[in-house]
Amino acid sequence: MKLGSDAKGVYVIAPTPFYPDGRVDDESIDRMTDFFIEAGATGITLLGQLGEAPKMTLDESVAIVRRVIGRASLPIVVGVSAPGFAAMRALTQDVMDAGAAGVMIAPPNTLRTDDAIVAYYAQASKAIGADVPFVIQDYPLTFSVQMTPGVIRRIVTENAACVMLKHEDWPGLEKISQLRSWEREGSMRRIAILTGNNALFLDFEMERGADGANTGYCFPDMLIDVVRWSAAGRRDEAHDLFDAHLPLIRYEQQPGPGLAVRKYVMMRRGIIASDTLRSPGAKLTAAARGEVDYLLARLARHDPRAACGQS
Amino acid sequence: MKLGSDAKGVYVIAPTPFYPDGRVDDESIDRMTDFFIEAGATGITLLGQLGEAPKMTLDESVAIVRRVIGRASLPIVVGVSAPGFAAMRALTQDVMDAGAAGVMIAPPNTLRTDDAIVAYYAQASKAIGADVPFVIQDYPLTFSVQMTPGVIRRIVTENAACVMLKHEDWPGLEKISQLRSWEREGSMRRIAILTGNNALFLDFEMERGADGANTGYCFPDMLIDVVRWSAAGRRDEAHDLFDAHLPLIRYEQQPGPGLAVRKYVMMRRGIIASDTLRSPGAKLTAAARGEVDYLLARLARHDPRAACGQS
Amino acid sequence: MKLGSDAKGVYVIAPTPFYPDGRVDDESIDRMTDFFIEAGATGITLLGQLGEAPKMTLDESVAIVRRVIGRASLPIVVGVSAPGFAAMRALTQDVMDAGAAGVMIAPPNTLRTDDAIVAYYAQASKAIGADVPFVIQDYPLTFSVQMTPGVIRRIVTENAACVMLKHEDWPGLEKISQLRSWEREGSMRRIAILTGNNALFLDFEMERGADGANTGYCFPDMLIDVVRWSAAGRRDEAHDLFDAHLPLIRYEQQPGPGLAVRKYVMMRRGIIASDTLRSPGAKLTAAARGEVDYLLARLARHDPRAACGQS
Amino acid sequence: MKLGSDAKGVYVIAPTPFYPDGRVDDESIDRMTDFFIEAGATGITLLGQLGEAPKMTLDESVAIVRRVIGRASLPIVVGVSAPGFAAMRALTQDVMDAGAAGVMIAPPNTLRTDDAIVAYYAQASKAIGADVPFVIQDYPLTFSVQMTPGVIRRIVTENAACVMLKHEDWPGLEKISQLRSWEREGSMRRIAILTGNNALFLDFEMERGADGANTGYCFPDMLIDVVRWSAAGRRDEAHDLFDAHLPLIRYEQQPGPGLAVRKYVMMRRGIIASDTLRSPGAKLTAAARGEVDYLLARLARHDPRAACGQS
Repeated sequence: MKLGSDAKGVYVIAPTPFYPDGRVDDESIDRMTDFFIEAGATGITLLGQLGEAPKMTLDESVAIVRRVIGRASLPIVVGVSAPGFAAMRALTQDVMDAGAAGVMIAPPNTLRTDDAIVAYYAQASKAIGADVPFVIQDYPLTFSVQMTPGVIRRIVTENAACVMLKHEDWPGLEKISQLRSWEREGSMRRIAILTGNNALFLDFEMERGADGANTGYCFPDMLIDVVRWSAAGRRDEAHDLFDAHLPLIRYEQQPGPGLAVRKYVMMRRGIIASDTLRSPGAKLTAAARGEVDYLLARLARHDPRAACGQS
Repeated sequence: MKLGSDAKGVYVIAPTPFYPDGRVDDESIDRMTDFFIEAGATGITLLGQLGEAPKMTLDESVAIVRRVIGRASLPIVVGVSAPGFAAMRALTQDVMDAGAAGVMIAPPNTLRTDDAIVAYYAQASKAIGADVPFVIQDYPLTFSVQMTPGVIRRIVTENAACVMLKHEDWPGLEKISQLRSWEREGSMRRIAILTGNNALFLDFEMERGADGANTGYCFPDMLIDVVRWSAAGRRDEAHDLFDAHLPLIRYEQQPGPGLAVRKYVMMRRGIIASDTLRSPGAKLTAAARGEVDYLLARLARHDPRAACGQS
Repeated sequence: MKLGSDAKGVYVIAPTPFYPDGRVDDESIDRMTDFFIEAGATGITLLGQLGEAPKMTLDESVAIVRRVIGRASLPIVVGVSAPGFAAMRALTQDVMDAGAAGVMIAPPNTLRTDDAIVAYYAQASKAIGADVPFVIQDYPLTFSVQMTPGVIRRIVTENAACVMLKHEDWPGLEKISQLRSWEREGSMRRIAILTGNNALFLDFEMERGADGANTGYCFPDMLIDVVRWSAAGRRDEAHDLFDAHLPLIRYEQQPGPGLAVRKYVMMRRGIIASDTLRSPGAKLTAAARGEVDYLLARLARHDPRAACGQS
Repeated sequence: MKLGSDAKGVYVIAPTPFYPDGRVDDESIDRMTDFFIEAGATGITLLGQLGEAPKMTLDESVAIVRRVIGRASLPIVVGVSAPGFAAMRALTQDVMDAGAAGVMIAPPNTLRTDDAIVAYYAQASKAIGADVPFVIQDYPLTFSVQMTPGVIRRIVTENAACVMLKHEDWPGLEKISQLRSWEREGSMRRIAILTGNNALFLDFEMERGADGANTGYCFPDMLIDVVRWSAAGRRDEAHDLFDAHLPLIRYEQQPGPGLAVRKYVMMRRGIIASDTLRSPGAKLTAAARGEVDYLLARLARHDPRAACGQS
């Protein structure tokens, strides 16, 4: 099951659950995987930016990938971004051998010119093997690398293995429209566009032509509803649900404490056992936890899934 | 009327209205000024990042400042950030002579170390005159300069003229708590903290200890309500109103198209006559305008002020 | 006398001489101007990065330009980089009216993509007037903007008024070869390429196809010799002189203290009266001054022009 | 043999020799190691920025470290910089077990504030073990992280395991003077300072108080002479030799092609068999190779070691 340019729906970005002492919590991985499947996820992305991959050894990383692949019959995409192609190639081989559907590659934050970005993806695809489907991660807020639509078109055109864009540019709505316009007029091969950035613009991204979401908001079940309803033309319903979640989406989208918020809510929802982050990682202050509790209580008036037990 | 560390409420960041041919629209400036006053603004900030100052000549800039000061009996703060101290000093003298209450200074985006940031503000205060009250603009998302709470404390301690922080760090809630904690324990002089970043976290910023808002969202009247209600302990009401606006706040907060959204809505509200931006400036696509119209229509169900005539 | 794409030789980047109390030193400006002319400069560039332009008022800047133009019959290029097009346009009009031959424009350090850089120069040329010849300043070390050869070709092709490249990329030798290769094969209009970066690679830049130097090293007379000899095919002589100066070139090329070194040596050479920098500016420590003195003493063994009186 | 704060002399930054087909060339590693020892190196640093570490697998990296340690009785320092502490810890354990004397840690290029830099080194030292001596790599030109002298003092004070500074800030002379001044007055523990940046300022760095060099210029034997002579007070001789090499030092210091120049010259000198870089890596053009040949020919007039066979 290889990732293709027909991917759609919600590929959930999975966090990595740890026990309070820092060990990987396999039981929570299983429960979380089951939760994603039951919620209707169409795929899962492991070891992304918010999967705490840099804090794990290669062995731990590969073990997690194997565990999730063994449990889920969904396509599993694995983040393999690395400072060098040797490490990227090694991890890619391990996870593709284990049954991954494809890999996701973020650009190193030192790339500056259009040509440098395009060259990087060509080298990366060659390094991991031209038969390995890959996802471009376009997240300038985090990586400081700006890809114009034209650069993405060049990468897509030059690399047959490029099948998906994890779109998280900001602002990014016109970028989706531009790419889809080029596809319609035949000047660019069609790829899957799934959006990230904690879903902060998912409501309109779907209407601009996105195929779904590829992010890790603590209510992936909400993302799945919004994507389905939006695809089905139930515009107002999609926006109503989305807007109810927006105060929390915004809160979780903060770089730094965001992942701690995500894990805290997933713990409160019973999806994972502990909200532990491996060091170094932001900790929620009591004030922040109180704010999240308040946001959940308010959200529960619109979405009963938010009425999870207090911590 | 000099700006003091007891400033609070909403200091509206004013856009600069232009005629469709690019000339400054004095009539709209007057109408906008009146609107801010009637809405209950406690101050107005001119020539900020979103006031299109770099597109105006010095003469135009000073004329606008004079015009607003002549009409409003509120304290007027003027952005004087410049690549050199000569230009900063010249503009400061002009606007203080014209009756401004103080100035706002953003750090040049080349500053890197704590010492360099602290030294910059000391030099700037000396250059403009130690008797001119100034506001620190702390907006790393735009200026790429990261100020820790400790750096802000050093600036406040070393410069008696520093009376206010325009807080727009992201994430920024803990920064407010830290500064207020230092003030309480006596290790830092108290300053006014008004928050920006298009009010994306105004709801919680007030609860963390902010004195108000210093931003330019297209519904400053809403900001004023939220600040008042929050200060009065009407927490749920403040959040209810804020949340109703959040989908649009988020949309307007996008760098680039954000200012075009702001002017478009203010035009629709009848506050300014045209949503023209001087070149170079982002233009709203038809799709974006449609999205803003849709957001306004949805907002109008909660806030009648959004039921403004269609464009 | 308009700047054209046939410019060559040495366009000296002039510092701005100040009296110890910070006032502009007109007498030193005259003496310095005469020195450049007598040394054989083919042009002079004023208000560049190291001309301390941001520390001067607009009036002071224009007065300096008028003074030098009134004294020299050489083409005078003026740096007009500014955070906004209004200020750029105003300064350009003033200096072109005063008789300048053209202007130099550096990119704002926030530009990231190829398209953004190309668009910026198109907007700038439109803002200042398509009849005003301009120089691209390509200095990524200072401006953090990376222009590929392809980007420069696009700017040259789209803007008839672009006549010169101030080349100071690092590494930059292959860039010269690439541009000259495109010119030869007819895919790019020929422009003048004069090199900067304190002449650190002038020896080889000339051999790669540069038309001369556009920098401010404290021995512009040496630059003139090297450019002439290199153009005349006297390779070893050019390198011998260049190499003798390289220890000092390298020392002066340091960002920060570099300008203080330049002014100190020009003072010791009797070209300007004082090595004062306007605040804020780096001051040479006693240790640094001693190092420069030592370098000059060593250089004097090869180049008698370095045997200037001790400070 | 643990690295201590009494380190001095020249710790050569070793490149990694490859066969033309990209395999690690063990024979060249041995020859190169022997060459460094015979030349009088006091230590060797492996897997630094220019050791192409990111292009090697962990197994290859560790094998190289073992090979050099097995051959040389000098202290071996290993670069262990990594995007996460898990990988850093794993590599550190492997190389310390193999007999390394210490490790070198560069800051991730996302660090911005003083506190963030200080916290990073504290976390890193804790991650690798407080008993592992480490070297701070202070190279803002490459890493975009600016450490003031005060930040270095904080790192030294807070981490007993910090024994050396690889100083390659630019400009950097005053930084050495400042640190040595603090050490003399007792406000900072003494550490070893060895300088890098391809030795571009080694002549004066020694005079400011550096203990030696920690860089990889293609004539490490020259660095060793300059360090010795400078330490012995033979100032003019040290400068004469240094100046003769400066044209080539400058040429090799270019980021990008620099490593290709280094390997090319080391191949011409017979130290390594091939100048191959693993992909992706800059290749020298024919023009560049000709320039290096010319520089070597000129250098050979002063230093017979440069009279190596033509390629």
